[in-house]
Amino acid sequence: MSSLRSWFSIPRGSHFSLANIPFGIISTASSKTPRVAVAIGDHALDLEAFAASNGFSALSTIQPHQAVFSQSSLNAFAALGRPIHSVVRKYIQSVFSEDTTYPNVLKTDFDLQKKVLVPLKDVKMHLPFKIGDYTDFYAGLNHAYNVGVLFRGPANALQPNYKHLPVGYHGRASSVVVSGTPIRRPNGQVLSNPAAEKKVPALSPCQKLDIELELGAFVCKANNMGEPVPIGEAEGSLFGVVLMNDWSARDIQAWEYVPLGPFNAKNFGTTISAWVVLADALAPFKTKGLENDSEVLPYLKEKDEKTFYDIKLQVDLKTPTGNSTTISKTSSRNLLWSFPQMLAHHSITGCPMQVGDLLGSGTISGLEPGERGSLLEQNENGKTSIMLSGGDERKFLGDGDEITISGVCGSDEDALVGFGQCVGRIEPALKM
Amino acid sequence: MSSLRSWFSIPRGSHFSLANIPFGIISTASSKTPRVAVAIGDHALDLEAFAASNGFSALSTIQPHQAVFSQSSLNAFAALGRPIHSVVRKYIQSVFSEDTTYPNVLKTDFDLQKKVLVPLKDVKMHLPFKIGDYTDFYAGLNHAYNVGVLFRGPANALQPNYKHLPVGYHGRASSVVVSGTPIRRPNGQVLSNPAAEKKVPALSPCQKLDIELELGAFVCKANNMGEPVPIGEAEGSLFGVVLMNDWSARDIQAWEYVPLGPFNAKNFGTTISAWVVLADALAPFKTKGLENDSEVLPYLKEKDEKTFYDIKLQVDLKTPTGNSTTISKTSSRNLLWSFPQMLAHHSITGCPMQVGDLLGSGTISGLEPGERGSLLEQNENGKTSIMLSGGDERKFLGDGDEITISGVCGSDEDALVGFGQCVGRIEPALKM
Repeated sequence: MSSLRSWFSIPRGSHFSLANIPFGIISTASSKTPRVAVAIGDHALDLEAFAASNGFSALSTIQPHQAVFSQSSLNAFAALGRPIHSVVRKYIQSVFSEDTTYPNVLKTDFDLQKKVLVPLKDVKMHLPFKIGDYTDFYAGLNHAYNVGVLFRGPANALQPNYKHLPVGYHGRASSVVVSGTPIRRPNGQVLSNPAAEKKVPALSPCQKLDIELELGAFVCKANNMGEPVPIGEAEGSLFGVVLMNDWSARDIQAWEYVPLGPFNAKNFGTTISAWVVLADALAPFKTKGLENDSEVLPYLKEKDEKTFYDIKLQVDLKTPTGNSTTISKTSSRNLLWSFPQMLAHHSITGCPMQVGDLLGSGTISGLEPGERGSLLEQNENGKTSIMLSGGDERKFLGDGDEITISGVCGSDEDALVGFGQCVGRIEPALKM
Repeated sequence: MSSLRSWFSIPRGSHFSLANIPFGIISTASSKTPRVAVAIGDHALDLEAFAASNGFSALSTIQPHQAVFSQSSLNAFAALGRPIHSVVRKYIQSVFSEDTTYPNVLKTDFDLQKKVLVPLKDVKMHLPFKIGDYTDFYAGLNHAYNVGVLFRGPANALQPNYKHLPVGYHGRASSVVVSGTPIRRPNGQVLSNPAAEKKVPALSPCQKLDIELELGAFVCKANNMGEPVPIGEAEGSLFGVVLMNDWSARDIQAWEYVPLGPFNAKNFGTTISAWVVLADALAPFKTKGLENDSEVLPYLKEKDEKTFYDIKLQVDLKTPTGNSTTISKTSSRNLLWSFPQMLAHHSITGCPMQVGDLLGSGTISGLEPGERGSLLEQNENGKTSIMLSGGDERKFLGDGDEITISGVCGSDEDALVGFGQCVGRIEPALKM
């Protein structure tokens, strides 16, 4: 790769530096068909238009596959495999680098620049993948511990299986939405009086609407049914990462979840950020996760321990009055299980993984109060309130509240690898 | 509709009488592209070929939509809606009826008969739907009670929520396979010694491989995210029904399922029968389900109580020695919650349902020992053995065992509405 300085104007502090090159699905007012793009600074590079104008003429590997850039999801591009993602990313970095060896491709072609570079503010983002199955794990050790303490006390906070396998459950793929999609407060069955001996449920708008700060990873390689993905090959089956907010209805969950786990409490919406950061782009920010003091079975044992990412995560809550408060700051290394471990475990039974499957990390919380990834932990299941700027306070989310998750790697303002934002605003419940 | 007697030879006792007309996806040796067909007696009527030969010329409603019959799944046909399914089924019944008003369409056209009617034995069946999300409910009251007794004793057998809502969980769509697909015994984490105080897991082939006798229903109408399907409209959103075997790894389940429910125990395979029986065809066999002695919330209350089906279900186990034993016989009315109730509950939060989503009923068991839909119930979690013909016995499934579920409505041998079979044979676990 050439230098990370670009002839193209990339604002300092942009999440989408030349070191990043995240992929997404865009449409524009003048061209409403969703298609593949990458983000660079404040712009999207429309890869369909770029390919159509022979932008990839110097990259023979991608030429037979250029139709993938006209798809309305990243599935076809992802299915080409990690080596191709790598080549395409590096080529785009080269094209944009100050000392590009391909100046004629874009640097000196102002007409083409106008055609293929669209300001992000003029772009509509779509769900990046057609998601076959979505699985949500529970790998955030501190979150699992905090929640366990609330419901079972410190002695039994973690279940006996917790440090032996990445606990997870199958989620609802159809309700995964792209950042910016409004989230309607769900109605559902809740207990009228949870403390009463006789359990009488009512249909009610959720009163304990919560967030879950997570990462999501997309699968880019299918395995045949009956054939597990070995831990050593799992990393190569992962396309990239997004920020994720797994909205949760805690009162619905408390009533419904025995004995088969959360269902309606989770199926009304899961928001992901629009730009998928490639695994390659995250490689320089690999780190160890949390230490596991249990002996892990060989099928989950990784040669390299650095399979977690040090992504600086932040959650902001903006109330309808317009006041915004940072309610959590933490690092994505606060996980006990890595995505490769999740994938190896998921498929150990022979479960067929497909390109476009989404794996959620589980809620990410640090150890300190200001580092917790759910309101449930912050308010100790409704016991305390979270103080917000402007004098507001919250236990759980109110109508009109907007949650913004952001995440970024690195400290060099010219070479940040960030995710942009994962945003959702709560709309009032439907009147039943 | 005309008489149910046909000019076409339909063997007495066929599941696919003229009263049925189930839909499926076929391919043949001479035409390997999967396409839509219906089953009639021992034959499949290839609807792509039938449409291409102007078979639907007398049915103007379907003509703009005939491309749906060339699809490799029923999703596009299903999306046309219940009124169209109804018209197409009735038209096919008319074409095949003895006193057909359309004799030229097929009855007297022997060349066309040769072209579009394929013996079932020469047909390869495919998964009928491209399944977006698969949800498995737990509506079999007797099963839930029996399992609850085994794990929590009779006093707490049913959880407090059980009679107030259809308990369910999100399943794994990618591992739903069509009847006849072999099922490989999964490997997974199990406790080496479950009774020991220190919980030490091992990676092992599942030793408690079980079946679950279920029905599955396919959704044919999408709802927008945030907009629940009202109970009064739920029946109209259901395309039809299949038999289902939700293979279960009980030892994996016992270790993994706290606190988020079953995961690996269920994601290695779920088998469904190949022909989808339309809701219309099942209408004459509607009946009440099990009585619910709890007051049900209005969003789950049905005007008509007869929203369950009286399908005679049977499970046969054939060992590798070739001996086959009927191990269960029951009726599908042994459910506390109907499919419309499941759909209304599933979407009460605004969860978006999509065409091709699959809803599983949960395991169906009657009250008597010979009517239980899982081995777990039959063997009291491994305490007793099930005696098979030929002197074999089983607690759980052995390698090479083949499970066949069959289901049929009605008693008139000339007008059965049946599902054919849902078959799966266990292959040995992969050596790890």
